[in-house]
Amino acid sequence: MTIDLEQKKKQASDWFAQVQTTLCERIEALEPNGARFERKAWKRGDGTLDQGGGTMAMLNGETIEKAGIHFSEVYGEFSPEFRKQVDGAEEDPRFWAAGVSVIVHPKNPHAPTAHMNTRMVVTTKNWFGGGGDLTPMLDAARRQDHADTIDFHKSYQTACDRHDASYYATFKDECDRYFYLPHRNETRGTGGIFYDHLNSGDWEADFAFTQDVGRAFIDIYPEIIKRRYQTEYGQAEREEQLKRRGRYVEFNLLYDRGTMFGLKTGGNIESILSSMPPLVMWP
Amino acid sequence: MTIDLEQKKKQASDWFAQVQTTLCERIEALEPNGARFERKAWKRGDGTLDQGGGTMAMLNGETIEKAGIHFSEVYGEFSPEFRKQVDGAEEDPRFWAAGVSVIVHPKNPHAPTAHMNTRMVVTTKNWFGGGGDLTPMLDAARRQDHADTIDFHKSYQTACDRHDASYYATFKDECDRYFYLPHRNETRGTGGIFYDHLNSGDWEADFAFTQDVGRAFIDIYPEIIKRRYQTEYGQAEREEQLKRRGRYVEFNLLYDRGTMFGLKTGGNIESILSSMPPLVMWP
Repeated sequence: MTIDLEQKKKQASDWFAQVQTTLCERIEALEPNGARFERKAWKRGDGTLDQGGGTMAMLNGETIEKAGIHFSEVYGEFSPEFRKQVDGAEEDPRFWAAGVSVIVHPKNPHAPTAHMNTRMVVTTKNWFGGGGDLTPMLDAARRQDHADTIDFHKSYQTACDRHDASYYATFKDECDRYFYLPHRNETRGTGGIFYDHLNSGDWEADFAFTQDVGRAFIDIYPEIIKRRYQTEYGQAEREEQLKRRGRYVEFNLLYDRGTMFGLKTGGNIESILSSMPPLVMWP
Repeated sequence: MTIDLEQKKKQASDWFAQVQTTLCERIEALEPNGARFERKAWKRGDGTLDQGGGTMAMLNGETIEKAGIHFSEVYGEFSPEFRKQVDGAEEDPRFWAAGVSVIVHPKNPHAPTAHMNTRMVVTTKNWFGGGGDLTPMLDAARRQDHADTIDFHKSYQTACDRHDASYYATFKDECDRYFYLPHRNETRGTGGIFYDHLNSGDWEADFAFTQDVGRAFIDIYPEIIKRRYQTEYGQAEREEQLKRRGRYVEFNLLYDRGTMFGLKTGGNIESILSSMPPLVMWP
């Protein structure tokens, strides 16, 4: 690896850590009684080899029933079974990856759940990936013409359009295809963007785009929670929310590639499954 | 198919339907205020072809927070992708299967959850499969020397020993290996028995064994609920139960072959996912 690539890894890693810090602050600002994220460092592997690790940040608050905002920087070698599945790993099993992943489950059923992650991956190739998507809990808000969804998409479209006129349409479509539950014939939420293996040949441009994807989420999602978290609701809305969260669990355990990948590569279980909603109903 | 096989299918199918009826009655007898199973018939496919179907029976009661006891008799042709995966289906894709499946989630955390199912499958071959396993909710009861687990195993051992001296040890071991969560390094519960592709060459003997597997469950599991459902408990036990149910969800969606198979072969979603616990926590 060139010194240049090492610098890029450092730059990307620092950025992902910064997204974690900033977003934790923005979310904490919505907690009326000072609930704070609890940070916990973890190391990958059994400790005999340096394989990287990360910092989990978990919040159980009043506005936010449960949130996980995790930074990780991991490296090592893929096991033989994974070398064929990861781009550029067949020639050389060594890999490095850093990223930030975010999942927020607000307590108020009127406030949508959201997910965001961005990452840089290095094998013999290197690329960025990530995205963000919104999952309104109530049927009344699960519409493309609802203000939350309109504004969420607008924030991502603005970020995309700054970099490439084709990005938004392409990545929005990938998001819709990815966050889909075939057994229910339902989308997980109302969309967002999803991209992977982004390497345009201009690392700086791809990194700048990935930074804007993080910023777009930081700009809009806490705003959406802010406008909803004090809305009155009753038992019916709460139950609708808890049932909708069941679909979220079904998606994550049945289809999410990140979850599967993490569980099969000996990832940090606590961190991987921290995306599970705090309370769920399958009545 | 010979007339003889048709008679066997009818005999097995009638038995599975009878297990459903008997077990529903035994469970209903534990409901203090007369909560009853609601039965619902369903048909497989879009209705243009006769592909069989079944009867779901769901209970949301006071003793039992949620239970599903389902009978099904389905037939048709396996899709090309499944022909290679099912014994005897590569030569001829036609299949027939009937069975009864049971999942009970009591409300009281001291009362264990349990699962049972038995089935007969016919392709160019034919066999029986099934089993039953116990999942105590509280750590204090998740021990091999706890009375509920001892008695549950004893009931199955008696049933097994009546047929073959090797059955209990073999099928208990298969159960332990099957109901295991590798990502947690945990068993789902405290075991039971699990068997599949049972065809000893003596259909009557295999059917008699499968009947005894059903009877063993009917004999012991309602008794175990009966001794636990009025035990006092507090918020701590309730939370421990709701967290343990999360592991149950993880197992069913990540590893259970029946769930996967059902979802991928266009099974009845409502019935397949009726095994999900009614309320679950991932705090």
